[in-house]
Amino acid sequence: MDVLVKLLHELGSNQYHDEQYIGGMIMPRLGIGLDCCVIPLRFGGLSLLQTTDFFYPLIDDPYMMGKIACANVLSDLYAVGVTECDNMLMLLGVSSKFTEKERDTVIPLMIHGFKDSAEEAGTSITGGQTVLNPWCLIGGVATTVCQQNEFIMPDNAVPGDVLVLTKPLGTQVACNAHQWLEQRNDKWNRIKLIVSEDEVEKAYHDAMFNMARLNRTASQLMHTFNSHGATDVTGFGILGHAANLAKQQRNEVNFVIHNLPCIAKMSAIAKACGNMFGLLQGTSAETSGGLLICLPREQAAKYCAEIKKVEGNQAWIIGIVEAGSRTARIIDKPRVIEVQTLEDGTVQSVPPTTTPRRTIKPNVEQQKPMLPEIQNQPNNNLQQQHPQTQQVTNIIHSVQQQQVMQQAPSVALLTPVTMHDQVQQVIVQDPQQYQHHQQMQQFQNHHQ
Amino acid sequence: MDVLVKLLHELGSNQYHDEQYIGGMIMPRLGIGLDCCVIPLRFGGLSLLQTTDFFYPLIDDPYMMGKIACANVLSDLYAVGVTECDNMLMLLGVSSKFTEKERDTVIPLMIHGFKDSAEEAGTSITGGQTVLNPWCLIGGVATTVCQQNEFIMPDNAVPGDVLVLTKPLGTQVACNAHQWLEQRNDKWNRIKLIVSEDEVEKAYHDAMFNMARLNRTASQLMHTFNSHGATDVTGFGILGHAANLAKQQRNEVNFVIHNLPCIAKMSAIAKACGNMFGLLQGTSAETSGGLLICLPREQAAKYCAEIKKVEGNQAWIIGIVEAGSRTARIIDKPRVIEVQTLEDGTVQSVPPTTTPRRTIKPNVEQQKPMLPEIQNQPNNNLQQQHPQTQQVTNIIHSVQQQQVMQQAPSVALLTPVTMHDQVQQVIVQDPQQYQHHQQMQQFQNHHQ
Repeated sequence: MDVLVKLLHELGSNQYHDEQYIGGMIMPRLGIGLDCCVIPLRFGGLSLLQTTDFFYPLIDDPYMMGKIACANVLSDLYAVGVTECDNMLMLLGVSSKFTEKERDTVIPLMIHGFKDSAEEAGTSITGGQTVLNPWCLIGGVATTVCQQNEFIMPDNAVPGDVLVLTKPLGTQVACNAHQWLEQRNDKWNRIKLIVSEDEVEKAYHDAMFNMARLNRTASQLMHTFNSHGATDVTGFGILGHAANLAKQQRNEVNFVIHNLPCIAKMSAIAKACGNMFGLLQGTSAETSGGLLICLPREQAAKYCAEIKKVEGNQAWIIGIVEAGSRTARIIDKPRVIEVQTLEDGTVQSVPPTTTPRRTIKPNVEQQKPMLPEIQNQPNNNLQQQHPQTQQVTNIIHSVQQQQVMQQAPSVALLTPVTMHDQVQQVIVQDPQQYQHHQQMQQFQNHHQ
Repeated sequence: MDVLVKLLHELGSNQYHDEQYIGGMIMPRLGIGLDCCVIPLRFGGLSLLQTTDFFYPLIDDPYMMGKIACANVLSDLYAVGVTECDNMLMLLGVSSKFTEKERDTVIPLMIHGFKDSAEEAGTSITGGQTVLNPWCLIGGVATTVCQQNEFIMPDNAVPGDVLVLTKPLGTQVACNAHQWLEQRNDKWNRIKLIVSEDEVEKAYHDAMFNMARLNRTASQLMHTFNSHGATDVTGFGILGHAANLAKQQRNEVNFVIHNLPCIAKMSAIAKACGNMFGLLQGTSAETSGGLLICLPREQAAKYCAEIKKVEGNQAWIIGIVEAGSRTARIIDKPRVIEVQTLEDGTVQSVPPTTTPRRTIKPNVEQQKPMLPEIQNQPNNNLQQQHPQTQQVTNIIHSVQQQQVMQQAPSVALLTPVTMHDQVQQVIVQDPQQYQHHQQMQQFQNHHQ
């Protein structure tokens, strides 16, 4: 695939993340490499932002698959802080292997799901292309035209920033485990001692609803809390996308990931499967994953509190930005945060049952995300702020107290509650290789 | 496929060709149904126009296939008179059946062809999506943002207009015949008494270069000569697209097609194959076909002369617009115009060899397109115009003289030079059915 990778790069080489002088204004331009292209237009400081994505069904619910495909395409716009999509096109491949009945059942449901999510996002579908294809295929194109203050270029991270993730990882593991369960195959036999059928069903449903969830609120709040840039987590895995984002930065920074929020039980399955998924190495492909957002340290907890207030869903502080050479890594023993969807539909960390921390403030959930590398500077300003930040304040204080109690100053504090013997520090050199690998794996799993 | 057709319509039902009041302006809006969506934007009378298309290789030259895919996507913008594309995305499916060597040879060539055509069109590719797929797949997305005077809504045909076509028909027939020749199969045995191997090779190359040719000049001249609307001829065939265009019209008009310019020998092959292609019925799928343009009668010949002057290629007056109920038809015995690409690369009608007309003005090529339904009103104004319209004037005079000599007033005059026994008047009721049928056929031909 080297030739292809080289050529794809060549395609974008003359427009890869630079600026352009148009009509007396310096306009940002973003080509191949990140989620969404940013093209300066001839008209009064306006830019064209657009993205396309298509893939193959990975769940067995056509309606939800349509919703996921739509959420996945829009996510690339959301990653640059664009919350209004002007237009969508739908890409559809009708499987030539469908019976007529399958086709007439599945395809309308898929279209309906796609359409419903587009409406939820405040946009609509005005065209597209439908072909016959051996494999069923769904995707789309999302486009917006906006002013410079309406999008956030993903290149302004500074040392000291904090990384936030808005959806749990593990969608690929969950979808695969569910398939193994249905097929009762050798792989299922390998994991059935670790997870129950109910746990796999639950994880699969959680994955489905997480994938179908729009990153729109996450995107809106990027503006409110002064994000320095973001990306959405999809085929490259969390580490691949972190590395991609790091490569785009203006400042010489590294991204260091400490926490891995994962759909409950997925890390256990991943460990049981050796290196098959790379979930704990950060390379497991996600579909329609969360936004990975750089935020100023003082804004990160507020961001998480606000998204919880607006949507009900938890977001997690998962790492830090430090001075470096524009790479990304996961620390030696990252903390896995187990995450589940509650009955009210909100996504939350699982309260601990077996390994309570030594010191807990009674009004703080134990597994709330830890704010990495606080350097023991209590942020007393928070005390005087609006009541809605009270909870955040508590979290931060809790983290700080834990740090103080453990008498260690920095990242080393972030020892995971769950220990992972074989998790190594991984630096992604070529995320496209990862994507290719992951795609291969995904196809093999789903289209044999 | 009825369910799908219905659903696709439903998707666009609330935005199908209407107007929208935005910021004090009436803005046109075009949804699903024609080549390109037109979406009014929030900003100062600007509109977003975009389109997507992807399909499977139908020729065996990857570089040319890339060029064709790019020309085919852009053609939808060109059909609405847009000549500047702001951005392109490329959609690519790498066949999972490729050997590594095939993949590393074919894919870069295809990308290169696509890129070269994009550059020829003055645009560039800033993103896209690549997947593994059983069938190799290529396509793209073309987007532009422009003011209202930069595009031409395809809905202003009036009775008396003339229909012009800018590329010959028969690309599907040519590609299939070439494949039969290579495979020396039963179908080849059926046609080899009618065409020579050289003629099939020639037709295939002509088809390839016609498909790769941009409709950009054709689009530019739509403005110069006051086009009332256009569409590009692709999967539905000439009649399917004419019917689609007719359905969109504000005025109650019918489109009547009298002439069918076809790549040389393709009508003979089509006739030998019965109803397999539907070339002479107007339903043979084209790939990256020409623009079918409604022009005021007095502009049509000038349009053809100007495109010939600028590009060297011939365009043909193929029909008329008359009062009617927004349908399209081909007359009972349409005239087939045989077309070939000359050594200088220009596309021209083949001079007649066997059936000379009775009366020919010496300075006029016999097979120049005939202007239908002139109603014997000599357009003497043309005589006083710029020298470059002299040739056009001659054509028109020639047509008029022929009409006069044959002593018949109207359409009946346009008896084809080549007679087709079995050509019936066909009215397309549901072009999407045709497209589906044609796609099925195309896939069956190319992907067994």
